[in-house]
Amino acid sequence: MKMAQKDRILLEMAIETALSGIDEGGGPFGAVVTCGGKVIAKEYNKVVKMSDPTAHAEILAIRTASELLKTHNLKGCTLYSSCEPCPMCIGAIYWAGIDRVVYASDRNQAEEAGFIDSMIYNEISSNPSDRKIRFTQIRMDSAEELFRKWKDTENKIPY
Amino acid sequence: MKMAQKDRILLEMAIETALSGIDEGGGPFGAVVTCGGKVIAKEYNKVVKMSDPTAHAEILAIRTASELLKTHNLKGCTLYSSCEPCPMCIGAIYWAGIDRVVYASDRNQAEEAGFIDSMIYNEISSNPSDRKIRFTQIRMDSAEELFRKWKDTENKIPY
Repeated sequence: MKMAQKDRILLEMAIETALSGIDEGGGPFGAVVTCGGKVIAKEYNKVVKMSDPTAHAEILAIRTASELLKTHNLKGCTLYSSCEPCPMCIGAIYWAGIDRVVYASDRNQAEEAGFIDSMIYNEISSNPSDRKIRFTQIRMDSAEELFRKWKDTENKIPY
Repeated sequence: MKMAQKDRILLEMAIETALSGIDEGGGPFGAVVTCGGKVIAKEYNKVVKMSDPTAHAEILAIRTASELLKTHNLKGCTLYSSCEPCPMCIGAIYWAGIDRVVYASDRNQAEEAGFIDSMIYNEISSNPSDRKIRFTQIRMDSAEELFRKWKDTENKIPY
C-alpha cells in the first residue's frame, strides 16, 4: 500500500475515534500513534471527561504508547491527529522524539469551533513579560544549583 | 507577608522539590501550584522515572491540582516553576486557565544543562512544513464533520 493511502486510513481512524468519543463525553479531537507500521495507541480528547486540562488526544496517545513500549522515547513512531496539534501537543511530540506527524484540520478551523489553539501559538511567540497571563522571572541561586546537581549526577538517562 | 516574599518562598519550594527529586530518579525541574494562597500540588520531573515524555513537573502539578479540585479549569491558581516552562507546559498553563506563573531559571539555562526547550520554542514559531519533524496536512471531509458534530452537541461543557 502506498504511504499516502496508508496515511489516509490512519488519519480516518483518528477521526473515527474522535467521532465516537464525542458520544462518550469527549472533545472533537482524536489521535493515533503507530510504530513500525502498527497502531499502538488510539485516543480521543478527555479534558472534560477526566477533569484534566492536559488530556488532549495527542498527549493521551503519546502517554499510552510510552507506557506500552516502556520508554519515554518514541523514535520511529508516527502521530496521526484529526487536527493540527496545539503547542502543548507539539511540545510533547518533540520531547517524545516522534518522527512524523500527519493531521487533517488546522488551528484556524479549531478556532472556528471555539478552541484557543491560535491564541496559544501567538502567546508562545511573545516575550514572557508581554503575555495575557503574567509570567514573572525571579532569579534564584538555588535554581542554578539544581542544574549543577544534575550535571554532577552520574549514570543519569538524558531525555 | 508581601507578595514578592511569598513568591520567593513558593519558588524555593518548587526548587527544593526538584533537588530532592533528582535523588529519586527525577529530572532537574520542580513545580508548585497554589490556589487561594494554599499549596495544592508539588511535583518534580518524572519523564525517565515514569517512562512518560509528558511528565514534566508543571504538567504533573497541573494534573494533580485538577484531580484534587475536580475541574479542568484552574482559574485563580498560580504556578511556580524552578525553570521557565517549555512550550508543552505553556500550552497546558493556557488550557488550564492558570492566572500567573513565576519561574527562576530560563530556557537558555535549561539549554546549557542539555535540554531542548529553546529549540522547541523555535520550531513552534516555524511553519509546520519547515520543521525538523515532518508535519503533513491531509484535508479530510470527515474531520470537518467532526467539528460540525461538536457544534451540534447539546449540553456540552466548553474548555
